Amino acid sequence: MSGNRAVAYIEPGVVEVQTIDYPDLVLHDGPGVHPQNAGRQCRHGVILKVLATNICGSDQHMVRGRTTAPQDLVLGHEITGEVVEKGPDVEFTEVGDVVSVPFNIACGRCRNCKERKTGICLNVNPVRPGSAYGYVDMGGWVGGQAEYVMVPYADWNLLRFTDRDRAREKLLDLTMLSDIFPTGFHGAVSAGAGVGSTVYVAGAGPVGLAAAASAQLLGAAVVIVGDLNPERLAQARSFGCETIDLTQDPPQAQIEALLGEPEVDAAVDAVGFEARAHGPDAGEAPATVLNTLMEVARAGAGIGIPGLYVTEDPGGVDNDARTGALKMRFGLGWAKSHYFITGQCPVMRYHRELSQAIMHDRVQIAKAVNATVISLEDAPRGYAEFDQGASRKYVLNPHGALDGVTAI
Amino acid sequence: MSGNRAVAYIEPGVVEVQTIDYPDLVLHDGPGVHPQNAGRQCRHGVILKVLATNICGSDQHMVRGRTTAPQDLVLGHEITGEVVEKGPDVEFTEVGDVVSVPFNIACGRCRNCKERKTGICLNVNPVRPGSAYGYVDMGGWVGGQAEYVMVPYADWNLLRFTDRDRAREKLLDLTMLSDIFPTGFHGAVSAGAGVGSTVYVAGAGPVGLAAAASAQLLGAAVVIVGDLNPERLAQARSFGCETIDLTQDPPQAQIEALLGEPEVDAAVDAVGFEARAHGPDAGEAPATVLNTLMEVARAGAGIGIPGLYVTEDPGGVDNDARTGALKMRFGLGWAKSHYFITGQCPVMRYHRELSQAIMHDRVQIAKAVNATVISLEDAPRGYAEFDQGASRKYVLNPHGALDGVTAI
Amino acid sequence: MSGNRAVAYIEPGVVEVQTIDYPDLVLHDGPGVHPQNAGRQCRHGVILKVLATNICGSDQHMVRGRTTAPQDLVLGHEITGEVVEKGPDVEFTEVGDVVSVPFNIACGRCRNCKERKTGICLNVNPVRPGSAYGYVDMGGWVGGQAEYVMVPYADWNLLRFTDRDRAREKLLDLTMLSDIFPTGFHGAVSAGAGVGSTVYVAGAGPVGLAAAASAQLLGAAVVIVGDLNPERLAQARSFGCETIDLTQDPPQAQIEALLGEPEVDAAVDAVGFEARAHGPDAGEAPATVLNTLMEVARAGAGIGIPGLYVTEDPGGVDNDARTGALKMRFGLGWAKSHYFITGQCPVMRYHRELSQAIMHDRVQIAKAVNATVISLEDAPRGYAEFDQGASRKYVLNPHGALDGVTAI
Amino acid sequence: MSGNRAVAYIEPGVVEVQTIDYPDLVLHDGPGVHPQNAGRQCRHGVILKVLATNICGSDQHMVRGRTTAPQDLVLGHEITGEVVEKGPDVEFTEVGDVVSVPFNIACGRCRNCKERKTGICLNVNPVRPGSAYGYVDMGGWVGGQAEYVMVPYADWNLLRFTDRDRAREKLLDLTMLSDIFPTGFHGAVSAGAGVGSTVYVAGAGPVGLAAAASAQLLGAAVVIVGDLNPERLAQARSFGCETIDLTQDPPQAQIEALLGEPEVDAAVDAVGFEARAHGPDAGEAPATVLNTLMEVARAGAGIGIPGLYVTEDPGGVDNDARTGALKMRFGLGWAKSHYFITGQCPVMRYHRELSQAIMHDRVQIAKAVNATVISLEDAPRGYAEFDQGASRKYVLNPHGALDGVTAI
Repeated sequence: MSGNRAVAYIEPGVVEVQTIDYPDLVLHDGPGVHPQNAGRQCRHGVILKVLATNICGSDQHMVRGRTTAPQDLVLGHEITGEVVEKGPDVEFTEVGDVVSVPFNIACGRCRNCKERKTGICLNVNPVRPGSAYGYVDMGGWVGGQAEYVMVPYADWNLLRFTDRDRAREKLLDLTMLSDIFPTGFHGAVSAGAGVGSTVYVAGAGPVGLAAAASAQLLGAAVVIVGDLNPERLAQARSFGCETIDLTQDPPQAQIEALLGEPEVDAAVDAVGFEARAHGPDAGEAPATVLNTLMEVARAGAGIGIPGLYVTEDPGGVDNDARTGALKMRFGLGWAKSHYFITGQCPVMRYHRELSQAIMHDRVQIAKAVNATVISLEDAPRGYAEFDQGASRKYVLNPHGALDGVTAI
Repeated sequence: MSGNRAVAYIEPGVVEVQTIDYPDLVLHDGPGVHPQNAGRQCRHGVILKVLATNICGSDQHMVRGRTTAPQDLVLGHEITGEVVEKGPDVEFTEVGDVVSVPFNIACGRCRNCKERKTGICLNVNPVRPGSAYGYVDMGGWVGGQAEYVMVPYADWNLLRFTDRDRAREKLLDLTMLSDIFPTGFHGAVSAGAGVGSTVYVAGAGPVGLAAAASAQLLGAAVVIVGDLNPERLAQARSFGCETIDLTQDPPQAQIEALLGEPEVDAAVDAVGFEARAHGPDAGEAPATVLNTLMEVARAGAGIGIPGLYVTEDPGGVDNDARTGALKMRFGLGWAKSHYFITGQCPVMRYHRELSQAIMHDRVQIAKAVNATVISLEDAPRGYAEFDQGASRKYVLNPHGALDGVTAI
Repeated sequence: MSGNRAVAYIEPGVVEVQTIDYPDLVLHDGPGVHPQNAGRQCRHGVILKVLATNICGSDQHMVRGRTTAPQDLVLGHEITGEVVEKGPDVEFTEVGDVVSVPFNIACGRCRNCKERKTGICLNVNPVRPGSAYGYVDMGGWVGGQAEYVMVPYADWNLLRFTDRDRAREKLLDLTMLSDIFPTGFHGAVSAGAGVGSTVYVAGAGPVGLAAAASAQLLGAAVVIVGDLNPERLAQARSFGCETIDLTQDPPQAQIEALLGEPEVDAAVDAVGFEARAHGPDAGEAPATVLNTLMEVARAGAGIGIPGLYVTEDPGGVDNDARTGALKMRFGLGWAKSHYFITGQCPVMRYHRELSQAIMHDRVQIAKAVNATVISLEDAPRGYAEFDQGASRKYVLNPHGALDGVTAI
Repeated sequence: MSGNRAVAYIEPGVVEVQTIDYPDLVLHDGPGVHPQNAGRQCRHGVILKVLATNICGSDQHMVRGRTTAPQDLVLGHEITGEVVEKGPDVEFTEVGDVVSVPFNIACGRCRNCKERKTGICLNVNPVRPGSAYGYVDMGGWVGGQAEYVMVPYADWNLLRFTDRDRAREKLLDLTMLSDIFPTGFHGAVSAGAGVGSTVYVAGAGPVGLAAAASAQLLGAAVVIVGDLNPERLAQARSFGCETIDLTQDPPQAQIEALLGEPEVDAAVDAVGFEARAHGPDAGEAPATVLNTLMEVARAGAGIGIPGLYVTEDPGGVDNDARTGALKMRFGLGWAKSHYFITGQCPVMRYHRELSQAIMHDRVQIAKAVNATVISLEDAPRGYAEFDQGASRKYVLNPHGALDGVTAI
């Protein structure tokens, strides 16, 4: 095993499939690896043969040049795989296990991990709390859009599927467990979506669709999804959501037409900082979604914010945006006693439960997000189509494990 | 309007439909009315024309002679109706409103009501915290298995259906909101049933079936219902539950056959103190269900106990049972770090949300419990059949509002 | 009883003690009364003889001309009194009872009240959810900086002190229960202040001091208070807080000097929209406090925001401020997985428990906020001194009930 | 370093200080070691020089012969120490660190540990979920009443004191973090003790006193402790608790005399299965405490049960007791809507926060439990005196680290 094909970021708009080194249990120096992390020993790690790995909307931020990602950064933080090698300190994970990898890397030994806040682990990223594979400023852990990848702290991070055959049948659903399904679920839970609630999800990309499916799984009475893209809205309707077209009437009016009242019980921001103003041909306006959610969320409601907001945005529309400052109508939220929950989803708080819901056919997440399998070599095409608004969740298939697997 | 047909308890095994006084906004002295409550003014009350009112398993405890219920006690605490008169202090409820009545009567003004603990209101029952219509030792509020009934503290207690036409279409489902649906839901929530969980419900009577349907609505991966009665088990299977027959192998073995492990994440006791020992031809053994739940619930699990346990049971099998003392294997629960949640369901914590789930077709509760409409005059037959184990939830139809309404 | 002396707002910078009508159980038309509320019958109300009533920082927003408050608006929403008359729908409150009045008026009958969200009651203010006595845009309920005041929905709203003698001894502490003690406590609880936590409170006005005392009561290990005013900082130190002077070094540096690390576990904004930039001679900068809190709060921390933010501010420094839009560095909060809890404190969720802490000498809230008794006629002086930054909480004493009562 | 002095159980009533092997990073076969655990490699472990180690009431169950503990079992699960050696998988703990060891051993890698349920870790005890050092049926991990002890999964389990000098000053308080302080705190939290609450703690042994001190730290208004032993009651009064003497009037009457009402908001069982009936000269009656708590706890209250209940008790008073079955008046608890929380305290959920409260002088736990330092060689005397009801918490001092340290 000498090589390892992997998807790398080259420059704005360009990704490329390269041959990189086959991983071992060390985080070697390389593009984006923080000096304090270079050479880090991972006796607690495993090497995975990647069975499925997805292209994520947050990868697009890098590929669009909205970050300082370095050339040749290997991408990919949504990983499902089979263990092919384990370090000497790995005790409860075995070679041959089929596992899901949470996108947030966590040590299982710091205060935050002990408090289930694995999205802000203190020990894996020298820059700030929180980390991820294949992502700028996240410590430099090598991405998993590849044939093979190393996962540190394996006993802590990995979700093991005890029934491997069933896991392979359900692989196209289970691959959503590494990020977007828990991320959408976290948004829905944070917002207070529960049995009998009405929920508005801003954004019908994969995370928004996952939030919508999650709200349904949580027993919501009505789930409404808003977007500017008609293809994505059609996808939301395909599994029972109501939709509103943000190029048309104001959101409150459209919600009132659906519910008989202009407000919902819970609201989710599945868009983040690259938000556009509403209406036809509107430009970027980073606070649009948050301000809209304060309008449409009932007094006392929660606003769950899985959509990414950043501390710096080199491509921001103005100086405020470039430093992550938003013109929020916070006074409106205050008057309505809203609460706001932000940040990376702590995947480990949800993935086991969600895997059970998948295994027992309680949710069809692959279908909801329109999972679309392509080969690893086709990743550049996947990035391009996704960037153009295709209502699809692209899943790379490096070893053919997804051949013949369909979303049911 | 001079008379009011109503179902009254006569003696063990006997109920009768009588003509009683048409209600006014006073709790008059009568069978079971506590002296301190006799003559109580209810300017805050309304008179309801009863559209649907159900026979409950806890009514059976009285009718079987397991309590000190007095002769001529008017029964019935599961009430849905239309407001036909309101007191001068009723401000947000109007004549013509179609409403659901929580079985627990609450004042909306005491410490417990203010803390959402409406099952233990301090102001409506001189004997102890907590009250209900038509029930022994609950203050003497007149029961609602009748044509008309008075409901005190109407603005606080009532759940109003804003769309009256839709409410009438869904009446057979909505009638479950007054007790068994929230009660089953409370059991499921208390036990920790959530997305992806495995849940065991002991008892496939109406509350058990409601708990099972609730666990599904909450996103449970697998819901298993246990009972001794094959007809009831078939009913549970009709909406997707797994079942175990308690006349057969031990529960842990049957659960292991279903799940691959002998324990569940959450357990619900929907039986209560009239429990029978497992196995064929077993007699009454009040701690059986609780002890079984400690066996089958995983370490760390919750045990939700909507099933009724009493402080005195004149018909108990032995002296301990007669004083409400159970031989619980509490050491087992302690070793497994179980928690136990008991008591009357505080209906107001759940009924609005559950009504939304019904209205938006997210749950088919009438179908799950096999709602069966009979006339008010047929109530004695309903009691008798239910006592013999019919897997039906009997709904009385005093004014024909349920004619032509079906569970879909 | 023909007259009633009361404090009224006249114009920016001017309040005046006037003689107004003695209240009855009707909300009559008058300054600031919403047309839909004018003439509203309050059979559920009581008339209170006011024993203590405080001047609040949020009154100052009106008096400074930062709102659209009308001339002759009677002020005052922090009220403790004795019941002198009750309406026919009042059942559990008696003439002679000594009671605390939550500043937020609530009906006890709407969805939000039933969910303990009494800060956003749906039935008392035609303009928006939520209400208060003597406040602009809050429905027009007459203020309580007066000899007598009417309190609607008395059984629901009032906290009754069962031991009247003890209540009179502790009156200077108990008067803080109507607003600032619960408001500060809500800020601390919302932020996640708990046993062993480190807490930063921005603002050493009365609410900030109450939040600091609350954090101590909740078991916080270290409570740090920041302000620009040295007198207020000295007050904070008087009961064991650490302080940082915001005219000096950056907050993170000062916190690091105190704790050995630059971040705290929980952060409270007790300032609101009239925030000033830090450093000497800095002008108003409405997002300063929120942005600072995101810097000093640890990843994963909560940010409790009892400080008021408004939807419109006629006196705002720029167009954004005038519409309640703030330039928040929300991206920083997102990167640190912060959560933000806003809105009026729902006083009824806390006041009973806090009264017990006062009665049993577990907290000295009057001393912490430097309660200072003045006569009703002296209210204009109290407003003026408070506006100039006096580190005092002014308590009006309309009937001499506070004569001889001291904070111990 | 060839030897290691340690306290071993010999037979009922007899403990002895023996010289055992100096530990290494392997769990070797020995008294009480489960076959599946014998020879277990602990690359994740450290060797501690024990600075303080306490005698616990649950050790007494073994020493009194109420369990099947084998001869020569090395006792001790309350351990504070200094790291003298670390395994190759230990990454964030250093030689020289001063650390507290939670009594429950946890792997940090199983489902329960990931959910913060470290009291029921699935990977350290082949017999059942949950483990501890030096305890029968808990996997055979060697006890820490010794000069040196091995602690597995060190990065996960250990609480490190960053300021070593301060830790040594506060060592007599910090030694309570390994068990009784968090255990008492868990009891108080589970029961719902909070700001302004009234709390009853049954049992004034060290755990009861810790629960009482915890309730105070949580802001309780009144804490009442009950016991049969006057010396222990005096100890409770020494830090501000009220007390009731269970040899005298019924508990409800005594509580009413203190509070003006016969019930409390929250109740803690700090006694467990060796409970005695109340009144003078009463014998053992295992359900006494639980039944009393249901009487004295208000409707809706929580009952926190840190007191140990067992699945088998060879010394039980009758056949029921011997199999862990209690005659609980569960019907009373049900009528009052009580909830019951049982099991080993998950120490890691609380110890960091409690250490902060100690370090910042917010609680004097050593003083509350009357911490009494004795030498390791004097352990047999400590066991004997404690068994006779001395109101002391005995702390062993194997290396003189506690010389000159006092509880302040």
